Amino acid sequence: MSLKLDTRYIENMIGGADFAGVLERARAAHETVLRGSGAGSEFLGWRDLPADYDRDEYARVKNAAERIRRDNDVLVVIGIGGSYLGARAVIELLGGADDGLEVIFAGKSLSSIELDQVLRALDGKDWAINVISKSGTTTEPAVAFRILREKLIAKYGDGARERIFVTTDAARGTLKELADAGGYETFTVPDDIGGRYSVLSSVGLLPIAAAGIDIDALMRGAAAARDDLTKSGDNPAIQYAALRNFLYEKGYLVEVLACFEPSFASMNEWWKQLFGESEGKDGKGILPDSLIFTTDLHSLGQYVQDGRRQIFETFINLESSPVDVEVPAGDDGDGLGFLAGKSLNFINQKAYEATALAHSGGGVPVLSLNLPKIDAENIGYLIYFMEVSCAISAYMLGVNPFNQPGVEAYKNNMFKLLGKK
Amino acid sequence: MSLKLDTRYIENMIGGADFAGVLERARAAHETVLRGSGAGSEFLGWRDLPADYDRDEYARVKNAAERIRRDNDVLVVIGIGGSYLGARAVIELLGGADDGLEVIFAGKSLSSIELDQVLRALDGKDWAINVISKSGTTTEPAVAFRILREKLIAKYGDGARERIFVTTDAARGTLKELADAGGYETFTVPDDIGGRYSVLSSVGLLPIAAAGIDIDALMRGAAAARDDLTKSGDNPAIQYAALRNFLYEKGYLVEVLACFEPSFASMNEWWKQLFGESEGKDGKGILPDSLIFTTDLHSLGQYVQDGRRQIFETFINLESSPVDVEVPAGDDGDGLGFLAGKSLNFINQKAYEATALAHSGGGVPVLSLNLPKIDAENIGYLIYFMEVSCAISAYMLGVNPFNQPGVEAYKNNMFKLLGKK
Repeated sequence: MSLKLDTRYIENMIGGADFAGVLERARAAHETVLRGSGAGSEFLGWRDLPADYDRDEYARVKNAAERIRRDNDVLVVIGIGGSYLGARAVIELLGGADDGLEVIFAGKSLSSIELDQVLRALDGKDWAINVISKSGTTTEPAVAFRILREKLIAKYGDGARERIFVTTDAARGTLKELADAGGYETFTVPDDIGGRYSVLSSVGLLPIAAAGIDIDALMRGAAAARDDLTKSGDNPAIQYAALRNFLYEKGYLVEVLACFEPSFASMNEWWKQLFGESEGKDGKGILPDSLIFTTDLHSLGQYVQDGRRQIFETFINLESSPVDVEVPAGDDGDGLGFLAGKSLNFINQKAYEATALAHSGGGVPVLSLNLPKIDAENIGYLIYFMEVSCAISAYMLGVNPFNQPGVEAYKNNMFKLLGKK
Repeated sequence: MSLKLDTRYIENMIGGADFAGVLERARAAHETVLRGSGAGSEFLGWRDLPADYDRDEYARVKNAAERIRRDNDVLVVIGIGGSYLGARAVIELLGGADDGLEVIFAGKSLSSIELDQVLRALDGKDWAINVISKSGTTTEPAVAFRILREKLIAKYGDGARERIFVTTDAARGTLKELADAGGYETFTVPDDIGGRYSVLSSVGLLPIAAAGIDIDALMRGAAAARDDLTKSGDNPAIQYAALRNFLYEKGYLVEVLACFEPSFASMNEWWKQLFGESEGKDGKGILPDSLIFTTDLHSLGQYVQDGRRQIFETFINLESSPVDVEVPAGDDGDGLGFLAGKSLNFINQKAYEATALAHSGGGVPVLSLNLPKIDAENIGYLIYFMEVSCAISAYMLGVNPFNQPGVEAYKNNMFKLLGKK
């Protein structure tokens, strides 16, 4: 198992009967996921996806990604929420070393400044669009697609058709109709997978593959996680779900996901959607928050160490890094003599250990999820681990992990204010 | 007054004697700030800074910024916490349209990946360094400075001297000694201003000016705020501090700062340090959190609307934008006919109104801070407003707004693990 849950910093809290009882409930919730017997079980398509996916579509994703990379400098991914967070997360964490194609994101706000920056970034470049929306009627991506499609056609004329890739409902909806009328290649947003669980479908895979990341390895990691975590019996996903509910019930109402790698920042955002949208309903839910260390140790670190005791912390401990930098020997007038010749990754690892000790010593319950490497296989594993943990955890809270009824309230107000019939 | 506090969404909560009592305490805390009679008053230098600053140093900042822009493609700012958050926030919000010089940030983590990305971004470019540290012994910037200084000297030889700008203690410390030995131009981190309150000193002003932003206008806005907010009598800073403590005492333990402009994201981070580090101590403090809308309405929006009632929201409502994009007329097969010809800023403003209504209707207390424009003068005003509000609010909580004792715990552990004497 590539991911390990380390509970050493909260051993003193979890030895008793109260945790054993919560763990028992987590095991039951896990069975609910496996049997598909809980609320929202029509959206369990993500559970078997790493083994059971459409091979033809997967091959078309890889083929389209190759053509996108061959013909373009930039791919503009148009999508919001679950239609972009997973892809951006994986690309920012794993795509840094690729110089082949730049992936940028549009249609994820109603900001003119943001859209203007996208348009300026395309100036003089060859570019393509991957628009991602189940229905096609979500305002933000629909507006961006209208504007960017017009620009693309102005630039390439009929050739624009070959540069528009549409990920949408397989059979119906506004965007499906637009794609059929325009003759664009289409990919499927599966009916049985909600947006926040969709990163390992074409929704995430096409942008990720276009960024030059090995999606075979990503799926291999997810499939390994599925093997490990969907058998009956204990596993780290059950334990993680149990621990977070145990802490929530003790009054720790905010979970901070913390990582010592700045390129993990968008993975934090993906995780916040996954858990926040799955659990935050019916007046319940752990509030998901995130920090990047050591950066934020010089910011919110003070609050975590000494502030109100309402937080628990889950560290994502990435135990190695694809690059390393050595602190050079030099004039020790800067007081760094004790670090000369040491690897920056080594120092960062010590910073993690020091922080976990300091925060747990200050009364913050600390969990760690250890991953041996930052690569597609490990991140595929982590993604699946979080998905299954989230489903278990939401069932423990007594909510449907797969709906999002609260998202409509502002939309209804907005359409009224904008005079939509 | 350019900033307006809008309380329309919580009128039903604040009409009674309980809020009047809290407001009275806020007035008293404001007097404590004005009189300099509270804890940590030796760090009140930010209070009169917009009027009372070193004119010679300010002129040197502008002159150095001009030289940096003339001679370089990139300025690498090396700093962590209060030594970079304010500059980055202002540059990301206001510097987007400037093509003259790119400002990038280093020394804000111990990540090899991040440092490697900085080094690759410098490849083939002309560049300079602004290293910012009061003492020079903070590990992250010291390591980055050691490595980047070596690269700069390898590239420019003796000429590197003209490309290193040091912002540090005026008289002593490791970095001051390095600067004197190297013959680098130095700027001052004032003794009476803590890092998180330092953005309007040389700490923030040099990078901001180098990014092509009008620091005269920034200071003018801050000076206007000082005029408005440091007189006896009621003002919006007192009211904001009162409202947030009132809500905290009612069990709303998390404040979400929410803005509909993605380029405000780093301002959110600056604000989180300001309030989190000032208030998060002695087991107390509102947890500062942030969201960008409409982006996060498709993510944590569900939690805010329907999740556990522990959040209140403060909207930063930017009422106009320096750019605008019109939704073009076109094939209405995308269902957007009702928006054709409308300005994106107008639609975004309606989204703000719709969200404030939806969230307050869902039981989330909502405040709004309205700013008429996104420009240096308004942002200078906002910065000062937040600084004085934070000092008032921390005094109301009964904590010292200007220390950060909890930051040492992880450092001490880390030095022990790394074998530092």
